[in-house]
Amino acid sequence: MDIQSLNHICPSANTTQPALPPQRPVPESDFQAAVQQWRAVLGTEHVLTDQATLDDYARCTLPRGTRPRAVLRPGSTEEVSRVAAIANAHRVPIYPISCGKNWGYGDRCAPTDGQVIVELARMNRILEVNTELAYAVIEPGVTQGQLSQYLRNNDIPLWLDVTGAGPDASIVGNTLERGFGHTPYGDHFAHSCGMEIVLPDGRVLQTGFGRFANAQARWVYPWGVGPWIDGLFTQSSFGIITRLGIWLLPKPQRCLAFAMKIAEHGQLAALIDRLRWLRLHGVLNSTVHVANDLRVISASQSYPVAAAQGIFPLPESVRNKLRRQAGIGLWNVMGGLYGTRCAVAAARKEVRRTLSPLGKVHFFGDRLLSLGMAVARWLERLGLAAGLCRTVRSAASVYALLCGQPAADHLNGIYWRSGLPKDQSPDPVSAGLMWLSPVLPMTGQACTELLGIVEPMLARYGFEPLITFTAISPRALVCVISIYYDKHDPHQTAQAGRCYDCLLDELIACGYVPYRTSIQGMARLRQQHGCFGDLLGQLKTTVDPHAILGPGRYV
Amino acid sequence: MDIQSLNHICPSANTTQPALPPQRPVPESDFQAAVQQWRAVLGTEHVLTDQATLDDYARCTLPRGTRPRAVLRPGSTEEVSRVAAIANAHRVPIYPISCGKNWGYGDRCAPTDGQVIVELARMNRILEVNTELAYAVIEPGVTQGQLSQYLRNNDIPLWLDVTGAGPDASIVGNTLERGFGHTPYGDHFAHSCGMEIVLPDGRVLQTGFGRFANAQARWVYPWGVGPWIDGLFTQSSFGIITRLGIWLLPKPQRCLAFAMKIAEHGQLAALIDRLRWLRLHGVLNSTVHVANDLRVISASQSYPVAAAQGIFPLPESVRNKLRRQAGIGLWNVMGGLYGTRCAVAAARKEVRRTLSPLGKVHFFGDRLLSLGMAVARWLERLGLAAGLCRTVRSAASVYALLCGQPAADHLNGIYWRSGLPKDQSPDPVSAGLMWLSPVLPMTGQACTELLGIVEPMLARYGFEPLITFTAISPRALVCVISIYYDKHDPHQTAQAGRCYDCLLDELIACGYVPYRTSIQGMARLRQQHGCFGDLLGQLKTTVDPHAILGPGRYV
Repeated sequence: MDIQSLNHICPSANTTQPALPPQRPVPESDFQAAVQQWRAVLGTEHVLTDQATLDDYARCTLPRGTRPRAVLRPGSTEEVSRVAAIANAHRVPIYPISCGKNWGYGDRCAPTDGQVIVELARMNRILEVNTELAYAVIEPGVTQGQLSQYLRNNDIPLWLDVTGAGPDASIVGNTLERGFGHTPYGDHFAHSCGMEIVLPDGRVLQTGFGRFANAQARWVYPWGVGPWIDGLFTQSSFGIITRLGIWLLPKPQRCLAFAMKIAEHGQLAALIDRLRWLRLHGVLNSTVHVANDLRVISASQSYPVAAAQGIFPLPESVRNKLRRQAGIGLWNVMGGLYGTRCAVAAARKEVRRTLSPLGKVHFFGDRLLSLGMAVARWLERLGLAAGLCRTVRSAASVYALLCGQPAADHLNGIYWRSGLPKDQSPDPVSAGLMWLSPVLPMTGQACTELLGIVEPMLARYGFEPLITFTAISPRALVCVISIYYDKHDPHQTAQAGRCYDCLLDELIACGYVPYRTSIQGMARLRQQHGCFGDLLGQLKTTVDPHAILGPGRYV
Repeated sequence: MDIQSLNHICPSANTTQPALPPQRPVPESDFQAAVQQWRAVLGTEHVLTDQATLDDYARCTLPRGTRPRAVLRPGSTEEVSRVAAIANAHRVPIYPISCGKNWGYGDRCAPTDGQVIVELARMNRILEVNTELAYAVIEPGVTQGQLSQYLRNNDIPLWLDVTGAGPDASIVGNTLERGFGHTPYGDHFAHSCGMEIVLPDGRVLQTGFGRFANAQARWVYPWGVGPWIDGLFTQSSFGIITRLGIWLLPKPQRCLAFAMKIAEHGQLAALIDRLRWLRLHGVLNSTVHVANDLRVISASQSYPVAAAQGIFPLPESVRNKLRRQAGIGLWNVMGGLYGTRCAVAAARKEVRRTLSPLGKVHFFGDRLLSLGMAVARWLERLGLAAGLCRTVRSAASVYALLCGQPAADHLNGIYWRSGLPKDQSPDPVSAGLMWLSPVLPMTGQACTELLGIVEPMLARYGFEPLITFTAISPRALVCVISIYYDKHDPHQTAQAGRCYDCLLDELIACGYVPYRTSIQGMARLRQQHGCFGDLLGQLKTTVDPHAILGPGRYV
């Protein structure tokens, strides 16, 4: 239908900004009154307003972080409820974070300056692990490393789907941002079930069947009965999630990794089309990652400034040499096969048959890796085959990820432009990185078109392409574009920020909208909302009339 | 946490009714003014107010239907938008239905008398079928039969997941009620993607990425960016869905049905636990149905009044005899294996290994059925083996359902108490039926406990158990309890209504909450909402301040 013809009914369909109460500055007296009440509820030690803390929380991997006015650290749902009620009473904006590891999208920073960070890291209880029905109920402070370790320590045959964000990242935080991992449970939000939510005025509610006393299916059936509201609380500022049910993958009889490299750009489209066939027909039932050469290379080394003779972006000849040295493809595929022994054997055959016209497919599981590791260690003692050792270690690290074991080293790529800090354990917030993650249909054609937009734009601003495509579902790819920059270089930093904005605009204009965005990009997305944005604004005003929760997010 | 302790913040947590504007009677003059405007927009022939039509739309399979004040039949999104805007201006309640085949839950009837039915059956365009990405975009009037036929007529190798509600049932209607079918895409809402919505004031919006011009991933990636609102429009009265994306199953290389019977009640728990293992480990990737003897028997014959000597409920001895005659089990399992030839062969082995300790597992596919059908037809011509013919036909009909082909005969069971009308093509609305469908965790223990509640309660009201359990996901079962009654018998009819209410109360009290409910049960569910209901009521008031859309539903 012609949307124009409905303008009599929806006059603002083509306007740009959803109606929201303007953010008024909070007078110091109101702020201090709130702080005093928060101290009474949380204890002085969990209400931080000292400059050092605020400086610390203003640090960000983006070109510009935002500075909070205070940091609160509640320890329970009841405390969160009281924190919100106090904020609401005094009209002080608060911004909830779980563990603050929102790398590349804003880390611990609110979308605007002057908000009070409500950090939920202290709420780190694993409330239940149900081995029979394969789920866990957790608080927002529970990290990937913590739950994964808990499962192994207690010999519980369940796997957690993890991301590459490292062991200290919150599971709830990633799920609410609709992040993704590597196993058949890779779409985290789709594998969560049941929320406890604190509303901006402090009310607490349970979603799905959880609102019924004694509900038996609360953590196993997400929709409940009547309207399903949980989606409203993802990527949003409608409430603070203090409890979440997540489904865990029963340890499969067999987990086999596969990898292959694509030698030519021209083959990428064919690869994607074949991966789609495998995913649509259920041969592959987990996310598959396809990374370009530089994305892989960045995991193990920094930008070769000398070889590039100080030139940015990386000259093609140096890139080609690096790729040859690393023994990788222009594009590199990695995925897992999960299931019973028979099912994995059948899938392996099908994957090989489908993909081998494009290159040799390598399969490896725990047995091959153990063997490889033993051989590599032995050769290493003899001072031989350092390359083999690296390869085996890298394969083992990837395999661990496929089996739900997070590790910090998957983040190493973010030091590509700045160099991995040598003198200390690396803190990601010291790196310069912006991630931009458009979604596209899983077709070779869409991939090609997207790269045609992205690669020239990156080059224009002085960045070489570091790109992955992830088959997040049988029909959709998420492309993650990494803009890594040297934070100590003001020019690079400024260019990174500009590149991000232009690329985001261009991608949205071409219909390749990101699945989430950094705090820098949120305002741009709000401009595109039309009637949808009007409704969202109305709902937000209803739930949060004083706009105290995360003002400046998507609504 | 102790919810009681939050009563200072959520004073109504333990009260019963969400605050909603009371429904005021619509004066005749307002109603007539609306009718006049609707006639101008839709044409007189699509605004029906004659008594015969209203009588017809008041017919219901439940003991008590509701009578509409008019029936509107808009033909486009723009018309729906104008219909809603007019209703809103005149404060006339409207109730959208797709094709009105909401059997057992209210059919075409609104929750209360006097609403204006907005029937969307004329909006029956298949707007797109994307063969590459395996999805369709449809209007609410598109039926299961229509799309299924369209795919076959055009040799499109995609299957639609269908329910047993017959070829004339709306796909959108079932998806919005969160219904389920039989294939790996059995959870319909989870396999839909992207909505066009008309709000109660006539505004039109697109969800997910659909709100962005030219969005590439609109029909393949559901969440979009920012808060995901689609769930709010399922089982709700927040908007009228005029367009929906649904995912279609690529025709698998192989689809193999499996069936087995369970001889003793004591084995049901073990069966369910084994099915859970198969589903959790991905051996079974589609819904599995487990039906008791009477549910199966009711599909092919009516209540044996003579054999039961006019007694209700069915005496155990007669039940046992019927079961022996039919050659079925106390519980009967039916499911499908889908995938590549190798994958199905692997799954078949695993299913047999896991289930055979409980009984013989039969597998059948199209080849075996064709052969069986040929043999049966041949024997039939000789006047032999009528039983075999019935078995093969029944198996073929079930197999067709597994392959996405709907058929009317799966509804035959609803005539159990009233007898299949002989003189005309049966109209389900002539039958007496109420479906009650609690959700339970997929454990044998929960099944046993649930049956312990349900069976005695049915017996108390004079009904024998007709029950199915469906493994809707790897962790959850939906139990469908069929209360079939003879509408011509006022006592049975009254007992059915009472039985439903008592059973619903008891199930909710025990934590076995239904995944959807009939118009008769909605008020009971509203009473349980607490803080959740308060929020829902607030959101509803925001979206629909005059409560003109479907008043009396879950909100």
